[in-house]
Amino acid sequence: MKIVFKKSDLTNAVNIVSKAIVTRTTMSILECIFIEAGDKIKFIANDMELGIETIVKGEILERGQIAIDAKMLSDIVRKLPDEDITIETDENFVVNITCGKINFKINGKEGYDFIFLPKFEREESIYFSQFTLKEIIKQTIFSILNKEDGSIAKTMSGELFEIKGNILKVVSLDGHRISIRKVELKESFKDISVIVPGKSLNEINKILNGGNEDMVRVFFTKNVNSDSNVYSHIVFEFDNTVVVSRLIEGNYFNIDKMISSDYDVKFKVNKKELYDCIDRATLFSSDKDNQPIVTSITDDNVEITINSSMGYMDENVRIDKTGKDLVIGFNPKFIMDALKVIDDEEVSFYMLNAKSPCFIKNDEESYIYIILPVNL
Amino acid sequence: MKIVFKKSDLTNAVNIVSKAIVTRTTMSILECIFIEAGDKIKFIANDMELGIETIVKGEILERGQIAIDAKMLSDIVRKLPDEDITIETDENFVVNITCGKINFKINGKEGYDFIFLPKFEREESIYFSQFTLKEIIKQTIFSILNKEDGSIAKTMSGELFEIKGNILKVVSLDGHRISIRKVELKESFKDISVIVPGKSLNEINKILNGGNEDMVRVFFTKNVNSDSNVYSHIVFEFDNTVVVSRLIEGNYFNIDKMISSDYDVKFKVNKKELYDCIDRATLFSSDKDNQPIVTSITDDNVEITINSSMGYMDENVRIDKTGKDLVIGFNPKFIMDALKVIDDEEVSFYMLNAKSPCFIKNDEESYIYIILPVNL
Repeated sequence: MKIVFKKSDLTNAVNIVSKAIVTRTTMSILECIFIEAGDKIKFIANDMELGIETIVKGEILERGQIAIDAKMLSDIVRKLPDEDITIETDENFVVNITCGKINFKINGKEGYDFIFLPKFEREESIYFSQFTLKEIIKQTIFSILNKEDGSIAKTMSGELFEIKGNILKVVSLDGHRISIRKVELKESFKDISVIVPGKSLNEINKILNGGNEDMVRVFFTKNVNSDSNVYSHIVFEFDNTVVVSRLIEGNYFNIDKMISSDYDVKFKVNKKELYDCIDRATLFSSDKDNQPIVTSITDDNVEITINSSMGYMDENVRIDKTGKDLVIGFNPKFIMDALKVIDDEEVSFYMLNAKSPCFIKNDEESYIYIILPVNL
Repeated sequence: MKIVFKKSDLTNAVNIVSKAIVTRTTMSILECIFIEAGDKIKFIANDMELGIETIVKGEILERGQIAIDAKMLSDIVRKLPDEDITIETDENFVVNITCGKINFKINGKEGYDFIFLPKFEREESIYFSQFTLKEIIKQTIFSILNKEDGSIAKTMSGELFEIKGNILKVVSLDGHRISIRKVELKESFKDISVIVPGKSLNEINKILNGGNEDMVRVFFTKNVNSDSNVYSHIVFEFDNTVVVSRLIEGNYFNIDKMISSDYDVKFKVNKKELYDCIDRATLFSSDKDNQPIVTSITDDNVEITINSSMGYMDENVRIDKTGKDLVIGFNPKFIMDALKVIDDEEVSFYMLNAKSPCFIKNDEESYIYIILPVNL
């Protein structure tokens, strides 16, 4: 195999597929990028849960294929000058990387044990802009459960992607809070409901360029060799790249019964003022003791106080309230996480009492953040 | 005590004195900034080796003094809006920090056990620009010995500051290499030779603004209560700040006998080309195995090669050589450290043979970097 790349094309391709590289594994092939030079040049990586394949520009002088340690390839390319880079292999799978008067030799692998991306048929598909996908991931990913212990937690480590008509709804929850985002699609699609691993969404997010004009096509596929009617994989196609992620098996929580539009207190507040205030209060709330903030809602004022072994803070923020007065406690981090991803300048809080969940949502309900209070 | 500060003045003062704050100590007073409001406002911190005192702008509404945890104070100030900040204490050493509608309460300390800066007389002093001091520290600090085990190593953990006439010479060494920088001062001063702890120089470097017009005055002082003729402390005075550092006791190495102007090979090379080449070679030299680079010097070419379990690299760099051919091995990091702090575009290497130290220096010898080769 012998291929000549522009440095920028090579760098870009290595960066993209490296998102599906496993580090610290006993299977060294999982640390490799598989390069295939046939009609086109393909870079492939697969960590068994997530697989990425991208087509790379370059001049094929000799066809062939090789598996190269991803970190080593990435390090070498990064340290090379911005000139043409040639990757050449010999019959012993020694990889020669040359660039001007610079010559690197490293050991590659034939890659007979490389695990290629699962075959899939392009059946059900939806599409929207990369910008929408990036936003919707950012706005929900923080409330997935990070620990993957037990079967209930397994579904909590992913996000629900639900399509009904022309509405895509994405949900994440961790037992203390629920994040819901809805996006109107340009067309109606067949009803679908799957759970996508949070880890896959995090990695996809890093390689989407996020343009409003650049589209991403999303397929839901079943295992080709299985008779099951259940979707096994989700596929994202964008630019010259295909990302395939396993889906999480199982049923997602029925969140509809947790959503209510009843409330006894509603207030509107400047998002930045409230965020900065709670951020200051977190100085006295360590991860260990998880000291809650006390939120005292009166006529046109919310007073946030915190009192821990480290110190005491109080601060007043102006609000626009309807309904009764209320004193309610929160984990400050949960409120901040939600405020951080809301773009509106003013946000509305809806509450029933000090024991019931608090809703942060807009009138159209394109976002709903539900946060359980803390007993004071 | 009650003082009103502008946020920027308070932030700046906390940042400066925090460089002498100890973290993870059993003596909690060493984690505190001592604030003294008398005729002026002084912030003081002292970790026993390094002490910093700075005068801060602010309006004194009530005189007094208090010791406040440095990290807590710094965190609170950072999270406050850019408005006037009031620090007020009561008879129980509770500290109220207020800013608009925001109110923090933390526990301060009377500070009866605070260790103030040692008293010193302003005897011998020299002065030069902050820029010069910052540069000279940066250009030598990398070759001090970081471990402080044993008495020989103790002097290696500091830098020699030697004044003879109008020349300030700064030296650091770690047993494998020596860095020497000379600066011509505007006046002649009394001969002085002291060893300044590397840690102190690192911290001073962070708070010098580095202006070419801003001067720093350096004093060498003896312990006021001692009859000894040996200097015990070095004092740096600049802007509104005084930094006092203990000196390291003992005699520094006699480096003059290690310096020779004999050579059998001399070459001139483009610094950036050589640096980038060696940087690429370090990909195959892990910290563990410390694989050397092989430097083959021939007529107008130096070939750098490295061959380790990770891979092989070779690269040729054009040089301008006089003298014999030579093959010599180096720890790549040592050459890079020196090249990194040399401002010249072209640098000159002087060597005798594969066993003798290599000299990188300019004609005026305002810098000399001496590096021991590695046996191949």
